[in-house]
Order: sequence, then C-alpha cells, then structure tokens
Amino acid sequence: MRIGYVGIGIMGRPMAANLIKAGHELFVYNRTARKCQPLVEAGARLMDDPAAVAAEVEVVFINVPDTPDVEKVIFSKRGIFGAARADLTVIDNSTISPAATREFAERLKSEKQVDYLDAPVSGGDIGAQKGTLAIMVGGEVEVFEKYRALFEVLGSKIVHVGPVGMGQTCKLCNQLFCALHMLACSEGISLAKKAGLDPAVMVEVVSSGAGGSWALSNLGPKIVEGDFAPGFMVDLLAKDLRLLMELSGESGSSLPGAALAGQFFTAAQTQGFGREGTQALAKIIDRLNFSTSNE
Amino acid sequence: MRIGYVGIGIMGRPMAANLIKAGHELFVYNRTARKCQPLVEAGARLMDDPAAVAAEVEVVFINVPDTPDVEKVIFSKRGIFGAARADLTVIDNSTISPAATREFAERLKSEKQVDYLDAPVSGGDIGAQKGTLAIMVGGEVEVFEKYRALFEVLGSKIVHVGPVGMGQTCKLCNQLFCALHMLACSEGISLAKKAGLDPAVMVEVVSSGAGGSWALSNLGPKIVEGDFAPGFMVDLLAKDLRLLMELSGESGSSLPGAALAGQFFTAAQTQGFGREGTQALAKIIDRLNFSTSNE
Repeated sequence: MRIGYVGIGIMGRPMAANLIKAGHELFVYNRTARKCQPLVEAGARLMDDPAAVAAEVEVVFINVPDTPDVEKVIFSKRGIFGAARADLTVIDNSTISPAATREFAERLKSEKQVDYLDAPVSGGDIGAQKGTLAIMVGGEVEVFEKYRALFEVLGSKIVHVGPVGMGQTCKLCNQLFCALHMLACSEGISLAKKAGLDPAVMVEVVSSGAGGSWALSNLGPKIVEGDFAPGFMVDLLAKDLRLLMELSGESGSSLPGAALAGQFFTAAQTQGFGREGTQALAKIIDRLNFSTSNE
Repeated sequence: MRIGYVGIGIMGRPMAANLIKAGHELFVYNRTARKCQPLVEAGARLMDDPAAVAAEVEVVFINVPDTPDVEKVIFSKRGIFGAARADLTVIDNSTISPAATREFAERLKSEKQVDYLDAPVSGGDIGAQKGTLAIMVGGEVEVFEKYRALFEVLGSKIVHVGPVGMGQTCKLCNQLFCALHMLACSEGISLAKKAGLDPAVMVEVVSSGAGGSWALSNLGPKIVEGDFAPGFMVDLLAKDLRLLMELSGESGSSLPGAALAGQFFTAAQTQGFGREGTQALAKIIDRLNFSTSNE
C-alpha cells in the first residue's frame, strides 16, 4: 500500500520503519527533514510538505506533539487538505484534543469526503520499535476494519473504542492513570526515605502485591536509582494533562486527583525537568520533604 | 511448634488454618469465640484470653483491626504481657501505627525479654486462604530467620524490610499506592462515562499498557459492573490512611495525593459505604459528576 507518514519523531520514526518492513511504500515528511534520513535509507520517499505526501498515497498517518501541530499538518497552506481526495484516509497517531479531533474529521468529511481515524498509541518508544503498542482507535468501524492490518503492524493491542474522538478520549484516560500512578510512586518513595525504610525494598515488595502498577515496576526503580532519562517526557505528559483538564470541563467531569497531579507536573516543568522522564515528578515531591534536594 | 493466634477474623482465620494444615499445634483466642469454631474443628484449642494463649506457646500471632486493639491484646489485664516469658515471641500481622509498634516491642523486650516482629500482610482474604500473601517483616533479623518457615506457610513473598516498625511503615506505603490507584480508577471510569466512552473498553485497553495497575485490572471491572462487595473494606483502608497521615507528620513527609485520596475515603464512610469494598470510592467520584447517582 502507498502510505504517508507526517511527523518523524521518537514515535513516528520506528512506526514508519515498521510499515516499510511490512512491505509498504512510504512517503514521509518532517519539519526537520534530516530526521527522515534513516527512513529514506530504508526506502521511503522524502516529500516537501504534507500536501505532497497526501497527493501520493491512499492513507496518511500524522504523529506530531499537540493539537495546533495536527491542525497545521492538515489545514495550513501546504497541508493535507489542499491535496485531499475522496479516496484518502487520515489517521492521527498524535495525542490531541478530542473536541478538535471531531472538528478536523467533520471538516475533512464534509468538504473533501476524506475519512478520519484518531488512533493515539501507548507503550513508548520501546513499544513503537517492537510493534507492541496499544492503539486506541476512534472512527467509523468500516474505516477501522479497512486499515486494521496496518494497526497490527504497529501494535499488539488494537481496540476500536468508538466514534471519532473516542481514541483521544481513551488516551486521556490512560494519561490520567499514568499521572496519578506517578504521583503515588513519588510520594511512596519519598515517604520511605523519610521514614527510614529502604526505598528499593519498598518498591520490590509493594509492586508484587495489590499496590502494584506498571509505573511502580518500571519507573519506581529508576526513581530510586536517580535515573531521570526520558522514556516519556514531563513536557508531553503535562500537555496531555492540560488536554485532560479541557475534557474535564467539556464533559462536566470533576477530576480532583488528576488536577492535583497536573499541578505537580507543572511544577516539574517550572523547575526545569520538562525534557526529563515523567519519573522526575519524584524530584518535586522530594523538594517538599528534604531540605537539601537529592537531585 | 506450639503457636498462638489471637484475632480470628477474615484474615486471621485462614492464616491460622494454614498453620494447622502445616502440622502446628494452634491455641486460639477471639473476642467473639464462635468465630473460632472452624479452627477448633480442625484441631485448634480455644483459650479464654490472650494470657492463656501466651502461657501455652512459643510464638503468638496477633491479627486485629487497629492500634488500640493490639495494645489491649498485649497489655490489658488478661493480655499477653501478664503471661510473657523470655522464650516468647510476639508477631503482629495487624496493620497499626509504626510508632506504637516500636513502643510495644520496646516494653516487651525491656520488661519481659520478649522478641517482637511486626509482620503486616497484603493480598486480601484470597491471599490468606491460598497462602500467597506478601508479608513485610520488621524486627531483628535473627528473630525473623527463626520464624521464616512460619511466614512461608502464610505467604509467598516474604521480605525482611528493617528493624521493628518498618513492616508497618512498608505496609502504609503499600496502602498509599492502593488509595491513589483507587482514586485513579474512580476518576478514569467516571470520566469515560461522562465523555461517552464505554468504561469497560477503557478499563481493558488502559490496564494492558503503561496506565495499568493491580487495582485497575482487579477492581476496575467491578466498578464498571457495580459490584461493591468487599475484598478489602473502605473502613479499614480509611483507618490505614489515618495511620499514614500520622506517619506523614511524624516523619515530616508531605503526601498531598494520599491526603486527597484519604479525604474521599472519609466521604465514602460518611456516605455509608464503610463496609463495602474500597472500589466504592467510585461512587463518591460519581456523586461529583452525575446528578442522579448510579449506585
């Protein structure tokens, strides 16, 4: 299949690479073109703008940081919209606003007869490389089924969760859990240290039982060791938590825990940890509890 | 070995039963004596008070709800203390105050040369029945090693976590995770419902990835189905969260997320859900978000 991929970053690059490996013909675009080089070497064609990508392909994936970035990729002067035809499908792997997603899909459908799926992913760069992502897909079920084989190249847990926008809604639920679990890790480890309990032992015991979480098992040991290198960056989770608070307001859902966690992620950005991993939240809680920070 | 077990409740009964099955001679006491009947039928001897238990055995386990209950079992007129000798060891499976634990152990040691281990457990009534509990043991390592074989009858994850009191400290860390994870489940499921996303689908997708937790996998589906029967009761977790706030103050550990979760568990008690499972927290969050409650 002729496939476009716009947004060749930490996630987009391995995802596009897996589509090439599966035998597809890739047409790629990235604002910083040199990041496409490994894909070009693997056989992808580098295009000048999203419109040029869309003109060549049956389906175009988007994977960019935030709502305004997706809007630009689709609707700016050299965006997908200009080259869109009725036989084109747009699949957005970004994590963005569910409400904006519905607007984008509606405009593409009503003005260009273009189909749209929102298909945000979870599982990090490792999951993207291994093709083991969880993919939460919103959109018409027929369109989802038409491209299911592509999702199965990219991930191992593929679920159609509802109409357009519901993929993003489900992803924001996922981020709520990630944020509150990281707050639990940060408070639990800080408490253990303050109370004289070996935090590594606490992480080991608690993660084996009813207090366990993916975050505690995978990021708890990193906090204990002082390893704050990103898997998933504070800046991106903080952005997702702002989207979550928008969804809270739009849907009339009071989310006091998520709001509190979001405030501490904002503090993590303020303190200069934005490009570290989300486990850097632990340094914010430690700043409440230790007179000399152990960063 | 001649073993005492004081406190034959949801947890104590299957734990004592497993010690009998392992070939030990059990001497049991419970405030409500009839709850001991199944153990007596299995061969245990029912005693009149904790002092009578202590007079017969080498090691006496305690498993009662709260700090004042343990204090009574040990130090009241007919308590263990009266019959204590230098060759007795007390092992407390309750979840109580770490500071009180240190006081109890110190008094038993200095006045009666009695050894003390705090050994709270995690894994619920199912784990107690199957002998698959996690057990967090505080105390002298030699005393721990002397009774390791008994712990291995009761649980499958046995960890010596430090000196006396550290078992309780570790357990309170565990409860911090349980409480915040349940808040995440409650908010995530309430948000899904409000935003039009099938909460069962959300639970399935999120629990398979980086947002997963024991709570979401095991209690998330119960929330979705409206099953609030206890595994672990709101009243007990609320009690543990009050102990956690005491430890927060004593250790100088600010725990904003745990404090917030604790306030909602207090609301769950206020609203009459104290004897339901901890997943009843979801009904409190739903009360914020739905005009007619779906209890």
